[in-house]
Amino acid sequence: MPLIVQKFGGTSVGDLERIANVARRVASRKEQGNDMVVVVSAMAGETDRLINLAKKITPAPNERELDVLVSTGEQVTVALLAITLESMGYRAVSYCGWQVPIVTDDAYGAARIYDVPKEAMERDLAEGRIIIVAGFQGVDGKRNITTLGRGGSDTSAVAVAAALKADLCEIFTDVDGVYTTDPHITGKARKIGKIAYEEMLEMASLGAKVLYIRAVEFAMRYKVPLVVRSSFNDHEGTLVTEESSDMEKESVRAVTCNTKEAKITISGVEDKPGVASRIFSALADSHVVVDMIIQNSSAEGKTDISFTIPEADLGKGLEICRGIEEYFQAENINGCEDIAKVSIIGLGMRSYSGVAAKMFSALAREGINIEMISTSEIKISCVIRQKYAELAVRILHDVFELDKAT
Amino acid sequence: MPLIVQKFGGTSVGDLERIANVARRVASRKEQGNDMVVVVSAMAGETDRLINLAKKITPAPNERELDVLVSTGEQVTVALLAITLESMGYRAVSYCGWQVPIVTDDAYGAARIYDVPKEAMERDLAEGRIIIVAGFQGVDGKRNITTLGRGGSDTSAVAVAAALKADLCEIFTDVDGVYTTDPHITGKARKIGKIAYEEMLEMASLGAKVLYIRAVEFAMRYKVPLVVRSSFNDHEGTLVTEESSDMEKESVRAVTCNTKEAKITISGVEDKPGVASRIFSALADSHVVVDMIIQNSSAEGKTDISFTIPEADLGKGLEICRGIEEYFQAENINGCEDIAKVSIIGLGMRSYSGVAAKMFSALAREGINIEMISTSEIKISCVIRQKYAELAVRILHDVFELDKAT
Repeated sequence: MPLIVQKFGGTSVGDLERIANVARRVASRKEQGNDMVVVVSAMAGETDRLINLAKKITPAPNERELDVLVSTGEQVTVALLAITLESMGYRAVSYCGWQVPIVTDDAYGAARIYDVPKEAMERDLAEGRIIIVAGFQGVDGKRNITTLGRGGSDTSAVAVAAALKADLCEIFTDVDGVYTTDPHITGKARKIGKIAYEEMLEMASLGAKVLYIRAVEFAMRYKVPLVVRSSFNDHEGTLVTEESSDMEKESVRAVTCNTKEAKITISGVEDKPGVASRIFSALADSHVVVDMIIQNSSAEGKTDISFTIPEADLGKGLEICRGIEEYFQAENINGCEDIAKVSIIGLGMRSYSGVAAKMFSALAREGINIEMISTSEIKISCVIRQKYAELAVRILHDVFELDKAT
Repeated sequence: MPLIVQKFGGTSVGDLERIANVARRVASRKEQGNDMVVVVSAMAGETDRLINLAKKITPAPNERELDVLVSTGEQVTVALLAITLESMGYRAVSYCGWQVPIVTDDAYGAARIYDVPKEAMERDLAEGRIIIVAGFQGVDGKRNITTLGRGGSDTSAVAVAAALKADLCEIFTDVDGVYTTDPHITGKARKIGKIAYEEMLEMASLGAKVLYIRAVEFAMRYKVPLVVRSSFNDHEGTLVTEESSDMEKESVRAVTCNTKEAKITISGVEDKPGVASRIFSALADSHVVVDMIIQNSSAEGKTDISFTIPEADLGKGLEICRGIEEYFQAENINGCEDIAKVSIIGLGMRSYSGVAAKMFSALAREGINIEMISTSEIKISCVIRQKYAELAVRILHDVFELDKAT
């Protein structure tokens, strides 16, 4: 019997009526002859409500206890969905993270899954039960409750699908699938039918919000076929799977845009060994994640170093750089939030030449200056002024003819 | 180091401010040099809110899932209390029922505790941590979440105290202790300083609401010294402990009153073997708990059988009796809610004679008719018309001079 894992986010289970809709959707798949496992998030707003309660006590609540607190959110949802399915005449059983168990490390608030034993779930499936698993939460080796951080329920769903070798993992969300770019930016954005894990991973890393990086990583590692689709209609979604010959043949699959980064430029630095190491070690020690890095040699044994970090970390990043300024005697340290990173992604880039040139000249034609460039085998990113962000996305979408299906 | 277990009910942890009060109370005991374990209920109203959510889905929610749902209530409280204590600079750690674990049978909604392994808690205590345990909940042998039913948190506290061989188990509630009778009925009611487990058990069974029967049973079995006291002041409470020579010497310790029972009378029944067995087996099969039973032989080979059951079960009880009427051909089956059971309790009754006579004549003097009588070694209960209930309590309180301490 085929096994399907379905994941529904907080909006899809936001009230009892929506939970009933989810139950009907799950039931209809069950009636079609599938074994069903459902992963759900906390009801929309509940996690924030609980965090705010804790923050009223102290701005920095104990991390172990915060996970104990917020994990009640999904526990409520799994029970309500199981009660609904049972009341419809189906046999259902809920699992909290520790009951599966979803075994994680002990990094409270951002735990990583390292094991999902399948025995208990297989027993319940064999008895015809629909399994409802609390997403976002797990348990460490010492029976402490953990949570997985943002997008955790997606990761839970993929991990459960991997453990059970599910035939399909459907991620239900509030959009119809993965688009060639953000439909809010251009009406020409087109839903992609099928996309490779590698491309999806770059898209998630580069600002597409539809799937979280860790979930895609997990799916890629365990070859779990993922479908992203809407919980509010029956439209076909986007299949995320292994690269195959029947995939669309374009060199570029999608354009993404991220305006949530900031740039720090350290100019007029002495050009001697160990400077870059000193700067980026200091940032890493403070858990500031650096994205792009550029170093230009300039005249007179001086050099400029620029790098991007999350916008929220700009103040911290500047403070760290200024704190160690004495080691490299910079002429200037500047921060800038007014940037956007526009990227094109596609497995086809590996075999097509001239993709980069086409991107740069398209931006140049519109007078958009490129401040930084970063490339990988399957993506090219350019940092530009933020005011040009949407224009750049529309131009690139047109130039690479992403509105046209092959 | 002395070990104290403290239990706080839903009202005592009803909001963040009250949780902070509880934290201060716990901390001050810790500062006095005690090891501390705290058992808490869900915040007032939370359990009802969750049950109502489930009942909106279906009037009869799946019992396993209902326990998953409502157990989130205490989980929120333990996390918030631990966060509060940590923010005050104490080391605290919360335990859900499954983390202790509080091992129970699988009777969802009314589970019985059968084991509380102490190893994990002892490790945390040895490291100086204040332990916060979620009351009311446990886990069965198959890792299903269970709840203990009404008064469950009291039972959790006593079970944890028994497991850890605590020096004291303090039950904080909204009254100052155990009274000679309900202070709402007579201003002469007096707080009892020290009372024996057996007396407390009878009082709990006979309608005193201050402690739940199971908790007292557990305390008696494992000889856990219990103190009942107010969470809103520092008054000394009532110590519930083993009978000792320094206890007050009165024949009668307290008067209780229960108006939540109903009486069924089956009159004119054929007086032949097996009739009572048939009736009470049928009631037991439907989980109707019978309290007092009286059978009077009457003329012509006929008999009357009267018994009391919880008021809420009256409809069900009548239905059951009428359903099997053909077996005993009664002349009449009547239900009556208009009754009260007034009881006097005291270990001293074992050695004093004339207590029953004193009770009956006191009631007779006021013209109160006794409809049923039931006795044990340490209590006498009379069923009377409900309108006389408070009068009877006041008379008995006076006659046995319960307002006077020895």
